[in-house]
Amino acid sequence: MCLFCKIANHEIPASIVYEDEFVMAFLDIAPVTQGHTLIMPKKHYDDFSLCSSALVARMHGISKLLIKHYDPLLHPNGYNFLSNAHEAAGQSVAHVHFHLIPRYDDEDGLNLSFNGRPQHKLNDKQKEMLKIK
Amino acid sequence: MCLFCKIANHEIPASIVYEDEFVMAFLDIAPVTQGHTLIMPKKHYDDFSLCSSALVARMHGISKLLIKHYDPLLHPNGYNFLSNAHEAAGQSVAHVHFHLIPRYDDEDGLNLSFNGRPQHKLNDKQKEMLKIK
Repeated sequence: MCLFCKIANHEIPASIVYEDEFVMAFLDIAPVTQGHTLIMPKKHYDDFSLCSSALVARMHGISKLLIKHYDPLLHPNGYNFLSNAHEAAGQSVAHVHFHLIPRYDDEDGLNLSFNGRPQHKLNDKQKEMLKIK
Repeated sequence: MCLFCKIANHEIPASIVYEDEFVMAFLDIAPVTQGHTLIMPKKHYDDFSLCSSALVARMHGISKLLIKHYDPLLHPNGYNFLSNAHEAAGQSVAHVHFHLIPRYDDEDGLNLSFNGRPQHKLNDKQKEMLKIK
C-alpha cells in the first residue's frame, strides 16, 4: 500500500485539515511555505492524468474552502494549485494529489518561475499536429 | 476586456489546440517546454479560487484529452498541471487558466522545485486552527 493510501486509511498520522468520504487534505510534512497543504482522493490513482474530473472538481472545491479558511489566519498574497505527473515533472509520491501553496511576499521554499524560450516554440506543421480536431 | 477574453473571442490570434463552447486551449506564446499549453474557460474569472469546480473539471478533462494526443507526438516523460492565483503566486494574466506543461528529461524553462523548510512548519496550536471542523 502506498504512503498516501496509508495516510488515507489513518495507518500513518498526518496533520489533517479536511476529510470526508472521498477526499483528504493535510499539511505537507516538508512545507515550502506556511500552510502548504496536499489535497488527495482517498482512492488510489497514480496521477492526475488517471483520475476522474469529478474527483478533481472535489479537490478544487476543497481548495476553495481552505483558501477561505486560511486567508484570515495566514494572510497570504496568493496561492498555487498544482499537480505533477511522473518523476520528470517533480512527482514524489505516486498517488494523485494537488498542492495548495499559500504564497507570501517574502522569499519562500517554492521555486516556480517560467522562462519562456524561443527554442521551445513549435513550427507551423508541429502546431497543426497538436490540434485536436 | 482582458487579453485572454480577447483570445476567447477570437479578437487576438492564438495557436488554438482545442475549443468548445466553454473552454479553449492554446499554446503558450512563451513556452517553457515544447507543447506548453494554457487551458482556460471562455468566461472571465480572475483566478482559480473564483471559478466553479465544474469548470475546473472541464479544464482537467481537456488536459487528459491533450495528454493522450500529445504523448505519441511529443514523447514527454511527465506533465505539470497548475494554476496560479495573484501576482505573488506568479499569475501574469488575471483570467483563470491552467498550465499543462509537458516535461522532458533535458533542462527546460520551467523552474519548479520544492524546498521544504523547518521554519515553515506550524506549531500545534496553528495546525489546530487550520482544521476545518
